[in-house]
Amino acid sequence: MALTIVGTMAFDAIETPFAKTDKTIGGSATYGAFAASNFTNNINQVSIVGYDFPTEVLTELNNLGIHTEGVEIVKDKLSFFWSGRYHLDMNSRDTLITDLNVLADFNPVLPESYQNTDYLFLGNVAPAIQKSVIQQLKQRPKLILLDTMNFWMEIALHDLLEVLTMIDILVINDGEARQLANEYSLVKAAKKILTMGPKYLVIKKGEHGALLFYDKEVFFAPALPLEDVFDPTGAGDAFAGGFIGHLAKTDDISFESMKTAIIMGSVTASFCVEKLGTERLRSITKQDIETRMKEFVGLTKFSVY
Amino acid sequence: MALTIVGTMAFDAIETPFAKTDKTIGGSATYGAFAASNFTNNINQVSIVGYDFPTEVLTELNNLGIHTEGVEIVKDKLSFFWSGRYHLDMNSRDTLITDLNVLADFNPVLPESYQNTDYLFLGNVAPAIQKSVIQQLKQRPKLILLDTMNFWMEIALHDLLEVLTMIDILVINDGEARQLANEYSLVKAAKKILTMGPKYLVIKKGEHGALLFYDKEVFFAPALPLEDVFDPTGAGDAFAGGFIGHLAKTDDISFESMKTAIIMGSVTASFCVEKLGTERLRSITKQDIETRMKEFVGLTKFSVY
Repeated sequence: MALTIVGTMAFDAIETPFAKTDKTIGGSATYGAFAASNFTNNINQVSIVGYDFPTEVLTELNNLGIHTEGVEIVKDKLSFFWSGRYHLDMNSRDTLITDLNVLADFNPVLPESYQNTDYLFLGNVAPAIQKSVIQQLKQRPKLILLDTMNFWMEIALHDLLEVLTMIDILVINDGEARQLANEYSLVKAAKKILTMGPKYLVIKKGEHGALLFYDKEVFFAPALPLEDVFDPTGAGDAFAGGFIGHLAKTDDISFESMKTAIIMGSVTASFCVEKLGTERLRSITKQDIETRMKEFVGLTKFSVY
Repeated sequence: MALTIVGTMAFDAIETPFAKTDKTIGGSATYGAFAASNFTNNINQVSIVGYDFPTEVLTELNNLGIHTEGVEIVKDKLSFFWSGRYHLDMNSRDTLITDLNVLADFNPVLPESYQNTDYLFLGNVAPAIQKSVIQQLKQRPKLILLDTMNFWMEIALHDLLEVLTMIDILVINDGEARQLANEYSLVKAAKKILTMGPKYLVIKKGEHGALLFYDKEVFFAPALPLEDVFDPTGAGDAFAGGFIGHLAKTDDISFESMKTAIIMGSVTASFCVEKLGTERLRSITKQDIETRMKEFVGLTKFSVY
C-alpha cells in the first residue's frame, strides 16, 4: 500500500565518542524512507532540499521505490543543516548548529500522484505543516502516524493539540510524553495522551525499548542489547519508518499487527545505530531482518511453566 | 527442593513521595524469603537480629515454611536499622541512617538441618561472609546465586572476586555491572563478568527490566509498566527471591527455565513495589501470580508475521 512520508532531508555533522563526520546525508524523512523501504517499495516522499543536495541520493531513493515528486528543490538555497555531539552514554546530545536554510520556507504542496496514500508518516516538523498535509489529502489515509518533539510543545502547543485530534498513532520519547501529559508516570501519561486524539501511543525509551499503548492494553518491545552503539542519529526515525513500513506492507492495522510492527521498528533501529548516519540502513538485506527478528524472538520468548 | 537464603533482617524507615514509615520490617533476607515463599515452602533462613525483632514475624515466616534456626537472636543488641528517602523518579535514593547494630557481629554458623541445601541465595552481605557460608556446606548446592553491591567492589574487591569463582549466578544492577567490569556497554560488561566465575549474569535495570546473560545468549525481562510505584524498597531482593524460588520449585536449572524464572522475578518485584515495605509480598495469592504472569505474556508476546 502507498506510504507517504513527510519530514526533513538534510546534511548532518555528527560527533560521537567513536566517530565523526562533517557532512553526511540526514533528516527525518531520509532516515524514515530508507527504513521503510526495507518493507515496501511504494513510498511518496515529501520534503524540501537546497541546490547542494546530491542528485545521486534522490536517484538512490527512486531506485528503492521512493517517489520524490514531492521533494521541492530550491535552486538558490542550501539544504537544512544540523550538527550535534553525543555524550558518552549516547542517550544525550548537544546540538551545535541548526541552519534552517530551505526549511524556513517548507510549505509542502502534495503532488496529485500522492493522493492514493493509504499510510501517512508525519515526521517531526511544525504541527501546522503536519496539519496542512492531512488537509491536502482528498481521502483520509487508513492510518496516520505523527512524530513530534518537546520544541513544538513549547512554541506551538495549540497547533500540536489540534493535529493530535486528526491522527491515529503518536510516536514520542519518554521525556516528551511526560512533558505533554505533565505526568511523571508513563502509564498515567499514556492514559492522558490517549484522550487527546490518538488511538495508539508509542513511547520510545532509547536503549530501554519502546511501549505501545492502546485502549487498556500495553505492549513492550525491547531494544536489542548491542556491544557498541556507533551513532544513534536517526534511530527514532528508523524505528518509526520500520514500524509503518511493516504496516503498509501487510496492510493489517490490528493491535496484533502493530505489536509485530513495533518489533520491526526496533529491528530497523538496531541496524541504524551500527554505522554512521544512514549507511547501515541503506545496506540491510531481507536475510538481515529475518536473522535479527529471530534474535528478538530469542530475547523475549519464554515458557509460562 | 531446599532453598537457603542468607542476608539481613532489619528495621527500615522509608520515605517516598507517596508514603512514609518510621519503622517497618525490612532486610534483604526478609524480602527474599517472603518473595520465595510464594513458590516453595522449604526455605532455610540465615540472618541475625536483635532483641527488638518481633517474634510474630519469625512465627509468620515459620508458618510459610521458612525455617529460622539459622537466624541468630542477640539478646542485648538492636537489630540492623536502615533509613532512606527516595527521589521523585524512584530510581535514586539517599541513605539517611545505617545503624549496623547486630550486623557488625554477623558471622553465621549454619545449623546441621541446613546441610540439605539444593539452592543457595547469598544476599548482599560482605563477600567474606558469603564465602564462609559456601564453605560450611558439606555438599555444594546445585545452584548458588549471589547478590552484591558497589560498596563491596570498593572495600572488598579481592574477597568479592574470590567468591565470584564459587558461584553460578551473579545478580547486580546496571551501575554495578559497569563498575565491576569497567565497561560502559552492558553487553561488553556482561562478557567480561562471565569470565570472572559466574555462568549466568542477571543485570537489573529497575523500571527498565532485567537482562539475563548466559554464554552467547541473552534474554530480556521487562518490568511491568505501573501507574504508581509506591515504594521500591526490597524490589531487587523480591526479584531475586522470586527468581530462585521458581527454580527451587521446578528444580529445573536449564536456560529455558531461567527465562521463566526471571519473569517470575519481575512478577514478584511488581507486587513488592505496590505497597509499603514487605506488606504486598506477604499477601500475594497463587491467583495473583497467574494473573500477572498472563499480563507479562501479553506485554511481550508477538507474532513473527
